[in-house]
Amino acid sequence: MATFQLNYYFAVVQRVLGLLLMIFSTSMLVPAVMGFAYGDGESDAFLIGFAVTLTTGTAAWWPVRHVQRELKVRDGFLVVVLFWMVLSLFGAVPLYLAERPDISVTDAVFESVSGLTTTGATVLVGLDTLPHAVLFWRQLLHWMGGMGIIVLAVAVLPMLGVGGMQLYRAETPGPIKDSKLTPRIRETAKALWYLYVSLTALCALVFWLAGMSAFDAVSHGFSAIATGGFSNHDLSLGHHDNPVIELAAIVAMLVGSISFGMHFTVWRSANPLTYWRDSETRTFLIMVLAATTVCVGVLLLSGTYVNVPEAMVKSMFQVVAIGTTTGFTTTDYSVWPTFLPMLLLLGSFVGGCAGSTTGGMKVVRFILLAKQGTREITRLVHPNAEIPIKMGAKVIPDRVIQAVWGFFAVYVTVFTAMFLVLLAAGLSELTAFSAVAASINNLGPGLGEVSSNMAGLPALAKWVLCLAMLLGRLEVFTLLVILTPAFWRH
Amino acid sequence: MATFQLNYYFAVVQRVLGLLLMIFSTSMLVPAVMGFAYGDGESDAFLIGFAVTLTTGTAAWWPVRHVQRELKVRDGFLVVVLFWMVLSLFGAVPLYLAERPDISVTDAVFESVSGLTTTGATVLVGLDTLPHAVLFWRQLLHWMGGMGIIVLAVAVLPMLGVGGMQLYRAETPGPIKDSKLTPRIRETAKALWYLYVSLTALCALVFWLAGMSAFDAVSHGFSAIATGGFSNHDLSLGHHDNPVIELAAIVAMLVGSISFGMHFTVWRSANPLTYWRDSETRTFLIMVLAATTVCVGVLLLSGTYVNVPEAMVKSMFQVVAIGTTTGFTTTDYSVWPTFLPMLLLLGSFVGGCAGSTTGGMKVVRFILLAKQGTREITRLVHPNAEIPIKMGAKVIPDRVIQAVWGFFAVYVTVFTAMFLVLLAAGLSELTAFSAVAASINNLGPGLGEVSSNMAGLPALAKWVLCLAMLLGRLEVFTLLVILTPAFWRH
Ligand SMILES: [K+]
Ligand SMILES: [K+]
Repeated sequence: MATFQLNYYFAVVQRVLGLLLMIFSTSMLVPAVMGFAYGDGESDAFLIGFAVTLTTGTAAWWPVRHVQRELKVRDGFLVVVLFWMVLSLFGAVPLYLAERPDISVTDAVFESVSGLTTTGATVLVGLDTLPHAVLFWRQLLHWMGGMGIIVLAVAVLPMLGVGGMQLYRAETPGPIKDSKLTPRIRETAKALWYLYVSLTALCALVFWLAGMSAFDAVSHGFSAIATGGFSNHDLSLGHHDNPVIELAAIVAMLVGSISFGMHFTVWRSANPLTYWRDSETRTFLIMVLAATTVCVGVLLLSGTYVNVPEAMVKSMFQVVAIGTTTGFTTTDYSVWPTFLPMLLLLGSFVGGCAGSTTGGMKVVRFILLAKQGTREITRLVHPNAEIPIKMGAKVIPDRVIQAVWGFFAVYVTVFTAMFLVLLAAGLSELTAFSAVAASINNLGPGLGEVSSNMAGLPALAKWVLCLAMLLGRLEVFTLLVILTPAFWRH
Repeated sequence: MATFQLNYYFAVVQRVLGLLLMIFSTSMLVPAVMGFAYGDGESDAFLIGFAVTLTTGTAAWWPVRHVQRELKVRDGFLVVVLFWMVLSLFGAVPLYLAERPDISVTDAVFESVSGLTTTGATVLVGLDTLPHAVLFWRQLLHWMGGMGIIVLAVAVLPMLGVGGMQLYRAETPGPIKDSKLTPRIRETAKALWYLYVSLTALCALVFWLAGMSAFDAVSHGFSAIATGGFSNHDLSLGHHDNPVIELAAIVAMLVGSISFGMHFTVWRSANPLTYWRDSETRTFLIMVLAATTVCVGVLLLSGTYVNVPEAMVKSMFQVVAIGTTTGFTTTDYSVWPTFLPMLLLLGSFVGGCAGSTTGGMKVVRFILLAKQGTREITRLVHPNAEIPIKMGAKVIPDRVIQAVWGFFAVYVTVFTAMFLVLLAAGLSELTAFSAVAASINNLGPGLGEVSSNMAGLPALAKWVLCLAMLLGRLEVFTLLVILTPAFWRH
C-alpha cells in the first residue's frame, strides 16, 4: 500500500521527464540532417540516439500520461536534478555511437554533461577535423542547457528557495500560487524562450557578418549566449583571429551573463539605462571593467603585449570569457604573467548575474556577502546599532542572508572535497584546483594541464568533474537536498 | 580643543602600551644572561635591545602615568593591535643587532612577528649553530605571544565581540561590567597565567625526562604549549628522532590546542571527562583521530611506511602538528603521497579550539558553519520549520551566527587578496597558497618552496606574510576594524 502511494506520488515526475525526453529526442534529428547535408557522416549515430531516447521517453510517459496532479516544490527538485542527469546521459548516446570521435563511455558522458551544463570543458582534441553533426550536437547541447538554466533560475529556484534565491520570488511578475510550480514556469518560460531565441539569432547574424562561416556563426552564437564555451576549433575563437568577432563575442557573452529577466524588463521599458540602475548588473559590469584595467596594465607593463589596442581587446576578451564562465579563449591566458591567470580563474567563482546562463556563485550573492562582512566590522564599533542589509531600497530579510551564507559554505566545502579527491587521483595541485573550479563554476578551461582540454585526465577525475559540473549547474543545494533522508520522508 | 581631547582620549592606551613595553624589555635580560652563561656571545645585542625597549616604554608611559580612565571596548582594539605590532618591532631589535645570524631588517622583523604571533615560520637556516641567546629569544617570543593570545581569546575578544566570540561572554565566570575591560582581564589573566606556567613546566620536565637537553626541553616546552613551532634545530623535532619525545609533543600540542578556560574548568572539577563533554573539544579530538586514521591508511597503502607503529606515530604527530597550527615536523610531510599534504594544510584553517594558543578559524566556528549549512538544506525541504542552532543545550543567537559568517567571509577574502599579491611577487601557485595559509593560520611551514623555511622569499612576500601573521593572530577583524573611519569618529 505504501509502495503504491509512493509510485503514484512520483508518477507526475515520471510524466514530466518522459515528455522532456521525447522533446529532447527530436533535437537529435538536427545533427542527423546535418550529417546528410554536409555528407561527412555520423547521421546514423544521431538517428539511433533519437530512436533510443524517444522510445525511452515514451515508455516512461505512456503509463502515467493521465496523471494530472500539480507539480509541488519537492517534485520541482527531482525534475530539475533528473532533467540534467537523464538528458546528459541520453545526450551522450550519439557521441558514443559516432565513429569519429571514437571515445569511451566516460568521455561521451563527460562531453555531454559538459555541453548540457554549459561548462564547455572538452575531452576532444582535433575538433577542426570532426564531422559537422558531432560539432553541431555539442553546441546544441549548450544552447538547450542554457535555455534550461534560465527557466531554472528565473522560475524554479526562487520557488524552491535555493541559496537565497527566494529573493527573486516577489520581483518577477505573474501570479504566485504558494507551492504550485507549473503555471509560473509555463508563463515565464514562454517569454524567455522568445527572448533567448531572438538574442541567439542576432548574435549568430553578427558573427556571420563579421566573417564567420554560417555554420560557425550559428554554433558560436549558441555557445556565446549560453556562456557555454564549446567551439568548433581547438584554438577556440582564437582560430578566427579577428578583432571584430572578438568584440562581438564580448558583447554576446555579456548579454548571456545578465539576468534574462532583466533583459525582458529592459525590452519592455525600451531604456538600456535600466541595466545600470540594477545594482547586480551594475556591480557585474564594474567588476569586468576593473579586472580588464588590471589585466591591460599588467600585460603592458610586463611587455606581454606592446600594442595598446591589442592588449585591451585580448584583456577584455579573456576577462569576459573567464569571468562570465563562458570559457572561450583567443590566447593561452594560462601563461599570462604572475597573478593574472589565478585572478581570472577566481573570477569564475563569482560568475555573472543570477537568472543568466553563467555558472559560479553569482554576483548578487557576493554583493550580499560583502555587505554582511562590512556590517560585522561596523558592528564591532557600534555593537548596538541595527544595520539593515539593503539591495537598492529593499531591505533583505535575515532568512535570505542566512541562505546565501549556507550556500557559500556548502559551495566551498564541496569544492574542497572534490579538490582533495582529484589530488588523490594523482593530479598536481594547480591542475586539480583549477579543474574543479572550471567544472563547478561551469567555466570550462582550467590552468596547468587542463588549460586547453581535459582529455588527459584519469577516468576517476573525469567522473568527479562530471559531478562537479552538475553540482555547479544545480546550485549545489538542489542536488544535495535530494540526498537527504528528510527529502524522502513524507 | 578637539585635538586636546583626542590626545587625552588615547592617553590611556599609551599608558598601557608603555607599561607593556617596560615589562617586555625585561624579558630580553633572560637571553642576555644566557649569552654569558653559555659563553657563545650575543649578550650585547639583548642588553642594547633591553635598554632601547625600556627607554621607549618609559618615555611613552611617563607623561601619561596618572591617567586613570578605565579601558573601554574601543581602547581594547587599539591595545590588542598595538600589543602585537609594537612588541614585534622591539622584539626584532636584538635579532637585527646580533652578529649571528647576520640578517636584514626584513628578516629580523619577520622572525620576531613569526615568534610573537606563535606562527613559527622561520627565515633562518643553520639553526643548530646559532648562539643560545638567539635561539632562546625566539622560543621566549612564542611563549609570551601564547600568553598574550590566551588573555586575548578568553578575556578580550568575547568583550569585543570579534567573529562571534561574544558567544563566550556569559560562559566565563566573574563580573562583567558592560564595556569595562580591566577588572575582567586582570582576574582572568591571573588564573590563566598560573595554569600556563604550570603546563609549560610540566611539558619541559617530560621532554627532559624523555631525553632532551635541559635547554632543548625548556625551549620546546615553550613552543609546544604556545603551539608556536620554532625549534633549535633545522630538522625541528625530527632532530631528536625519539618516539617518546614525539608522543610527549603530541600531548603537549593537544594541550595547547584546547581552551585554557576549559583546562581551568577541568582542573576545578578534577574530572578529565569534562573535556569530552564540551562539544568543541570533542569535535576537535574526533577530527584529529579521523585525519590520523586517513593518514595511516594512505601511508601504509602507498608503502611510504611499512612499519605500522611508525606510520601511526608519524601520522598522528604530523596531523597534530599541522592541524593544531604548531608546525613542528619529524619528517618532510610535504612529499607524502597525493592529497595528504593539502589535507593537513587545509586542516590548519580549522586550527584548534577558541581560547587556545592555536591559529586558524577555530573549531567552534566550523561547527557553527556546518550547522548552518545543514539547516539551510533542511529548510529547503521544510521551508516553514523554525530550526534553532544549538551548541550543547544552548541556542545560539542569530547575531552570533552572522558574526561567524562575516568572519569566515572576511578571512577568505583577505586570504585570497594576499594569495594574489604573492603570485604577483613571482611565487608559484602552491608556494604562494601554502605560504599565506601557513602565515594567516599561524601555522609556520607551508608546502612547495616554503616547506621547511621562508628564507628564499622576496622581501615583498615577507612583509605581506608578516601582515598575514598579524591578521591571523588578531582574528582579522580586530586589525581591520581600526582601519575603518567609523572607528576613529567619536
Ligand atoms: K562555460
Ligand atoms: K605555529
